[in-house]
Amino acid sequence: MRKISLFIAMSLDGYIADSEGGVDWLKGHGSDDENIDTYSEFVKDIDTILMGWNTYHQIVTELSPEEWVYQDFTTYVITHNEHDSSEKIQFVNMNPVGLAKRLKEENGKDIWICGGANLIQQLINEDFIDYYYITVIPTILGSGIRLFENVEHEIKLRLLNTQSYNGMTDLIYTRR
Amino acid sequence: MRKISLFIAMSLDGYIADSEGGVDWLKGHGSDDENIDTYSEFVKDIDTILMGWNTYHQIVTELSPEEWVYQDFTTYVITHNEHDSSEKIQFVNMNPVGLAKRLKEENGKDIWICGGANLIQQLINEDFIDYYYITVIPTILGSGIRLFENVEHEIKLRLLNTQSYNGMTDLIYTRR
Repeated sequence: MRKISLFIAMSLDGYIADSEGGVDWLKGHGSDDENIDTYSEFVKDIDTILMGWNTYHQIVTELSPEEWVYQDFTTYVITHNEHDSSEKIQFVNMNPVGLAKRLKEENGKDIWICGGANLIQQLINEDFIDYYYITVIPTILGSGIRLFENVEHEIKLRLLNTQSYNGMTDLIYTRR
Repeated sequence: MRKISLFIAMSLDGYIADSEGGVDWLKGHGSDDENIDTYSEFVKDIDTILMGWNTYHQIVTELSPEEWVYQDFTTYVITHNEHDSSEKIQFVNMNPVGLAKRLKEENGKDIWICGGANLIQQLINEDFIDYYYITVIPTILGSGIRLFENVEHEIKLRLLNTQSYNGMTDLIYTRR
């Protein structure tokens, strides 16, 4: 069955965005050429992305306004408002857990939970995340939007792998 | 000059104790014999410990009531109440930042900030932590006492080392 993976970066103190939603602190402690391309490795097994409206809006207005960066995938954007869907970007007014459940039953490669925090929390609380790929950024941010907020019960994990590059550490877990 | 090190374990979602202060979830994903003794390695350079009253009280009433586990060190316990100090355990009614400042100027080996959260936060906010030794426990706890709460400004870190054993990952940082 298709797996659902969270692949996201957080500060050492657990934030995925600063208080204004900014992500320009999401970087290592040195030059960029020390980086390993963990993204390309991760998305080899992915054909579908789930994200919330705010994440989508930030990508198309701020992070990459010129081109849609996830052209190789089918992206589902969860929103209460009406938008015209395309083949590559489907706007859906659905509970993320219901959508994830439906997608898991369809054929395909794995599913990437891209953000934001609220969508992630709903899926964590229903134990719908099969793999956690967490990149720890070498920064204590102090405030912002937390990755793990309103988690309703303990989830025991098994560490599968770690790697470090440019001060960042990837922690990869599955559920125990 | 003596260095001040935080050496502590937190859940993946950043808790150092559960809502009742409990720490029995502070363990790896498998059997204990996979563990590396990172504690013994860490304390080689330590001769002084700083802790708050609640941490001290938990150690002597619950975690190790039979014997004082930090016999090899001088421990400073910060408390507003009067207690009889001994050579090994000094009860002091002082601001932790003031105490840390005084101890740094004395001769000796390095200083370990043992907990709890409030004491740690005061030292983080004054940029008094030279080294962060954070062990990430393979658990999303959901609630409890956060390690990083009320941090007032961003602190950029440099990753020095990582190691994993029994599902736990040590992340060792210094300030950039």
